[in-house]
Amino acid sequence: MPEHKAASRLWFSGLCFLLQILNILLFAVFVRYSPESSPGQCPPQLNCSRRNQDPDFQQPRFQDVHIQVLLSFGLLVAFLSRYGPGSAAISILIIAFAIQWAVLIQGMFYFFLNGKIYMGAQSMVSADFCTAAVLISTGAVLGRVNPVQMLLLALLEVTLCTLNEYILLSLMGVSDSGGSLTIHTFGAYFGLMVSRVLYQPHKDKRKREEQQDKGHQTDAFAVVGTIYLWIFWPSFTSITTVHDNAENWAVLNTYFSLVASTVSTFILSPVLYEESTPRMVQIQDATLAGIAMMGMAGEMLVTPFGALIAGLLVGLISPLGFRFFTPLLRSRLKIQDTCGIHNTHGLPGILGALLGTLLTLLATADTYGYRLELVFPLVAQGSRTVTDQALIQLSALPLTLLLATLGGCLTG
Amino acid sequence: MPEHKAASRLWFSGLCFLLQILNILLFAVFVRYSPESSPGQCPPQLNCSRRNQDPDFQQPRFQDVHIQVLLSFGLLVAFLSRYGPGSAAISILIIAFAIQWAVLIQGMFYFFLNGKIYMGAQSMVSADFCTAAVLISTGAVLGRVNPVQMLLLALLEVTLCTLNEYILLSLMGVSDSGGSLTIHTFGAYFGLMVSRVLYQPHKDKRKREEQQDKGHQTDAFAVVGTIYLWIFWPSFTSITTVHDNAENWAVLNTYFSLVASTVSTFILSPVLYEESTPRMVQIQDATLAGIAMMGMAGEMLVTPFGALIAGLLVGLISPLGFRFFTPLLRSRLKIQDTCGIHNTHGLPGILGALLGTLLTLLATADTYGYRLELVFPLVAQGSRTVTDQALIQLSALPLTLLLATLGGCLTG
Amino acid sequence: MPEHKAASRLWFSGLCFLLQILNILLFAVFVRYSPESSPGQCPPQLNCSRRNQDPDFQQPRFQDVHIQVLLSFGLLVAFLSRYGPGSAAISILIIAFAIQWAVLIQGMFYFFLNGKIYMGAQSMVSADFCTAAVLISTGAVLGRVNPVQMLLLALLEVTLCTLNEYILLSLMGVSDSGGSLTIHTFGAYFGLMVSRVLYQPHKDKRKREEQQDKGHQTDAFAVVGTIYLWIFWPSFTSITTVHDNAENWAVLNTYFSLVASTVSTFILSPVLYEESTPRMVQIQDATLAGIAMMGMAGEMLVTPFGALIAGLLVGLISPLGFRFFTPLLRSRLKIQDTCGIHNTHGLPGILGALLGTLLTLLATADTYGYRLELVFPLVAQGSRTVTDQALIQLSALPLTLLLATLGGCLTG
Repeated sequence: MPEHKAASRLWFSGLCFLLQILNILLFAVFVRYSPESSPGQCPPQLNCSRRNQDPDFQQPRFQDVHIQVLLSFGLLVAFLSRYGPGSAAISILIIAFAIQWAVLIQGMFYFFLNGKIYMGAQSMVSADFCTAAVLISTGAVLGRVNPVQMLLLALLEVTLCTLNEYILLSLMGVSDSGGSLTIHTFGAYFGLMVSRVLYQPHKDKRKREEQQDKGHQTDAFAVVGTIYLWIFWPSFTSITTVHDNAENWAVLNTYFSLVASTVSTFILSPVLYEESTPRMVQIQDATLAGIAMMGMAGEMLVTPFGALIAGLLVGLISPLGFRFFTPLLRSRLKIQDTCGIHNTHGLPGILGALLGTLLTLLATADTYGYRLELVFPLVAQGSRTVTDQALIQLSALPLTLLLATLGGCLTG
Repeated sequence: MPEHKAASRLWFSGLCFLLQILNILLFAVFVRYSPESSPGQCPPQLNCSRRNQDPDFQQPRFQDVHIQVLLSFGLLVAFLSRYGPGSAAISILIIAFAIQWAVLIQGMFYFFLNGKIYMGAQSMVSADFCTAAVLISTGAVLGRVNPVQMLLLALLEVTLCTLNEYILLSLMGVSDSGGSLTIHTFGAYFGLMVSRVLYQPHKDKRKREEQQDKGHQTDAFAVVGTIYLWIFWPSFTSITTVHDNAENWAVLNTYFSLVASTVSTFILSPVLYEESTPRMVQIQDATLAGIAMMGMAGEMLVTPFGALIAGLLVGLISPLGFRFFTPLLRSRLKIQDTCGIHNTHGLPGILGALLGTLLTLLATADTYGYRLELVFPLVAQGSRTVTDQALIQLSALPLTLLLATLGGCLTG
Repeated sequence: MPEHKAASRLWFSGLCFLLQILNILLFAVFVRYSPESSPGQCPPQLNCSRRNQDPDFQQPRFQDVHIQVLLSFGLLVAFLSRYGPGSAAISILIIAFAIQWAVLIQGMFYFFLNGKIYMGAQSMVSADFCTAAVLISTGAVLGRVNPVQMLLLALLEVTLCTLNEYILLSLMGVSDSGGSLTIHTFGAYFGLMVSRVLYQPHKDKRKREEQQDKGHQTDAFAVVGTIYLWIFWPSFTSITTVHDNAENWAVLNTYFSLVASTVSTFILSPVLYEESTPRMVQIQDATLAGIAMMGMAGEMLVTPFGALIAGLLVGLISPLGFRFFTPLLRSRLKIQDTCGIHNTHGLPGILGALLGTLLTLLATADTYGYRLELVFPLVAQGSRTVTDQALIQLSALPLTLLLATLGGCLTG
C-alpha cells in the first residue's frame, strides 16, 4: 500500500506539472494583454461580449476586478464552515487551475481575434464567474473524490459552463447579470449529477460524523463566512450591470433579499429544529440562498418590498428543503450532497430564474423608464417584445439544467 | 418547563414573522427607489438632509455604501471577541431588523415626499449608522436579555436615535460627521440605562466566569477585530464628510488617533495589570476609543499632532476607566456593562464632543481657509458666529445624554 | 527576579511613553497637512518624489490609501499563521510606532519645505511601505528579542529603509514600483543580519517545538492569511504605478504569478514531503514568494505567460530553499529564521530584481509603445539608453543588499 500511495502522489504531482506547462504553452501561443486604455479597445472584428458593444459601457475599473476575485473566496469561506480547513488546500488548487483555464476557454469564445486572445480586466471577471460555478460543484462532492478527479472535473466544467454562458448571454440575449442561472443553477446541478454518478453508500456517513465533531471551530468559520457574504456579495451581483444607476438598485435589492432571508431562518428554526436561535451555519445558508435568488432579478426589481418578499420566501424554502428534501435526495435518487448545495444554490437559482421571467413579463416602458434599455437592450430597441424576452428567459432555465446534468453525467 | 420553552420559541418565531410581514407591508406602502441618477435627485419640496442641499454634494458612490455596511459588522466582530460566537446569531437578527426599520424611520424624517419614502444609497448609509448605535447598546445587555427583548430594544432605539440625529443635525446644525454624539454617546448611554433598569445581581457573575474560559478563541477574535477596525474604520468616520479634501483629513486624523491610542495601551498596561504586553482585547478597546474620540473632531482638526495627543489621552483614560470606573458603576449605580461600552464608546464619545466644541471655538477663517464652509456651512455663510456654533455643539451633548437616558429607562 | 521583571515592565512602559511624546513633539514642530486639493499641490521648490512631478500623476485617492494600510496587516496575518496570536500585540505596537516614524523620516526626504513636512495621502502610502519592510524583518527575529529591542530595530530600520528607497528611486531612477528590492529584499536581509548577530543556539529549538503543537489553530490562520493575500495583494503591487493602464497589467501579472506559484507547491510537495496535499502554510509561503517576485517586474511584463513562468519558477525555488537552504543557513551561518523570511521574501525579491533587469534589457519602444514613458520615463525622454537603465536596475540589487546587511549588523 505505501508504494501505491507514493506512486499516486507522484502521479498527482506530475499531473499538476503537466497541466501547468500546458497552460503556460497555451498562454504563450494565444493570450496577449489587450491595449485597454486605447480608445477603440474593442475592434469591430473582435467578438466582444454583448455589454462591450454598448457605447456607454465603462471598462470595469481595477477596483471592480479586485472585488470579483473575492467571489470565489466567499464561496470557499462558506464551504470551510461546513467542511473545515482540511479542504482549503485542494480548493485553492482548483481555483488556481480553473482561473487559468477559464481565461483560455472564455477567451476563445469572447475575445478571439487573429489567432490571439486579448485579455484584460473584463476577461478576468468572466473567468472568475466560471471559477465560482466550479467551486459550487465541488461543494457537492467534497471529501468523496480524490484531487486528480477534482482537477478533471474543474477542466470539464469550465468548458461546459462557458459554453452555457455563451449560448445564454450572447446567442439568446438572456439577461442574467448576477448569474442565477449561469453560476448558481449550473454549478449546483452539475455538482449533483457528478455526485450521483460517483455514489458510494458508506463513505458519506463517516464523513458526516467527523463533521459533527468540530462544532466550535465550524461555528467560528460560519460567523466569518456570513459576515463576508453580507459585506461583499451585494457588490458581486451588481458588478456586471452596465450603469451606476442599475448597479445601485441591484445592490440594494440583493441586500434586502438577504436581510429578509436571514429573518426567515429565525422564523423557521424554532419550528423545525426546536432551538431558540438557529446555528450560524443555517444563517449562512439562508444568506447564500437570498443571494442566489437575486442573481437574475436583482437589476429588474423596481421596488424594495419585492426584494423583501422574495428573500423571505426563499429563506423559508431553503431550510424546508434541507429538512425534507435532502434526505429524499439521498435515499431515493442516491445523490449525496456534502455541503447542501442543492438548497443553497440549486433551488434558489431556479426560483430566481422564475422570478426573473415573471418580472420580465411585467416589464413595461412605464415602470422602467430609461432603465429599460440597460436591462433589456433588445426589448428597448424594439427587436423583441416583452413576452418574447420572458419566454427566452424561461427557456434558458431547462437549457441550463439539461447542459448541467448532461455535463455532470459525462464528467462523473 | 419544556412546554413553556417550546411555547416561548414559537412565540419568538411568530413575532419575527409578524414583524417581517409588517416591515414588508410598510415598505410596500411607503418605500420606493429614488431615481438617483437623474440630475435633480432631491426636489426642493423634499426635506433632504443638510448635506444634500450643498450644491457640491456628490451622491455617495456605490463603493462607499458598500463600506458603510461594514460599520455594523466591525462592531459585531469587536463584540465577538468579548462574548464569543454564541452571540453572533442574535446580533445578526438585530442587524437585519434594525436596518429595515431604520430605512423606514429615517425615511420618514429625511426623504418623505408625497406620501412615499424615496430611498437610495444615502438612506442606506443613514440606516447603517443607526444600526451601529443599536449594536453598541446591545453590547451592554448582551447575555442578560432574551431575543424578544432585544428586538423591542432595537425597534425603540432606532426611533429615538433617528429623532436625536434629526434634532442635532437638521434642526440645530451640529457638525458631527463621524457620530461621536449621535452614534457612540447615544448608543452607549442608551444601553447603560437599559442595563440599569434590567439589573439582575446574580446573572452577571456567572456570565463573566463563562467568558474567562474561552481565552484562546477570544484572543483570535480580538486579533481579527482589531485588524478589521484599523483597516476599515478610518473610512467610516470620513464617509459623510462632503468633499474629498475634508475626507482625507478625517481619515488621517482618525488613523493617527487610533495609532496613539494603541500606544497608550502599551504604556498603561504594564502599570495597571502587571503584564509586559497587553492582551489583544485591550488593544481592541483602545482602538475603538481612539475612533469614537475622532467622531466629531475628525474633520475639524487641522494638525496631525492634535490627533496624536487626543488619541494618546483617550487611550490613557479608557483603560483607567475600565480599571476604576466600571467596578464603581457596578457597585454604586448597579449598572452592568457586559462589553464595557461605557469606556470604549460612552466616555470617548463625550470627550470627542468636548474636543469638537473646543476646536469649533478655535476655528477661524484663517486656519480653515476654504474648508470652513465645508465643515461649518452656517458659520461661513455668516448666519452664525463661531461662539454660537460652539455653544450649539456643546448643548448637543447634554441633549443627547438626556434623550439616551430617558429612552433607555423607557425601553427598560 | 519578580522585582527585576516589574522594573523591566515599567521601563518598557516608560520608553513607549517617551517615544510617543517625542513623536508628538516632532509632529507638532514639523508636520502639517498639505493643502491637497489645491491645484498646484506640489510647489517646485518642494522635493516631491519622482512620480509627483509627472504631470499626469493623479493624487492617490482615498480608497487607495485605505488599501495601502492593508499591506502591513496582510503580512501580520501571514506571520500569525506561523507564530500564533501571541505575537500579534507586539506586532501592532511595532506598526503603530513605525508608521509615525516613517511619516517623519520619509517626510524629511521627500516632502520637506520651509522647515515643515507637508503630509497627505501620498506620504501615508510611503510610510506604509516602510512599515511593511520592518514587519518582514521582525519575522526573522520574532520570539527571540524583547519588545524594547523590537522598538529600537523598528526605529533604525525605518531610517535606513527610507535612505535606501531615496537613493534607489530618486537618485538612481530605478523602477521598482512593487518594492521587490526596497521592501522584500531589504526587509529580509536586514532581518536576517539582525538574527545573525543575536544568535542564541538554544532558544530556537524550544520555540520550534511550541510552534508544532498548535497545528489546528495555525492552519485556520494560514487559510485566512492566504485568502487575504490573494484578494488584496495584487492591488498593492500596482498601487504606485502611475496610470490605470500599467496598473491593470501589474495586477494581472501579480495575479498570474501567484496562481502559478501556488500550483508549484502542489507539484513539489508530494516529492519533498511525501504528503498528498501541501499544508496551508506552504501554500501561503508560495503565495508570498509569487508576490515578491512580481514586485519590480509587475509593470514591465508584457505577456501573461511570462508571469506564469516566473511564478512557476519561484514557486519551485522557494520550497526547495526551505528544504535545503534554511538548515544550511542555520548550521553554517548561524542565522535563525523564525518565519522563513529568506525563502518567502529574500530569495524571491532577488529573483524579481534579476527578472526586472532582464526585462529592462529587452524593453524596446516597439513592445512597450506609449507605456515606455510610464515605466521608464528617463529612457523614453532619451536621457538614458535601455542598457544604462538595466545596469542601474542591476546595481541597485547589491547596493540594497549592502545597506541591508550593514544596517542589520549595526542594529544587532
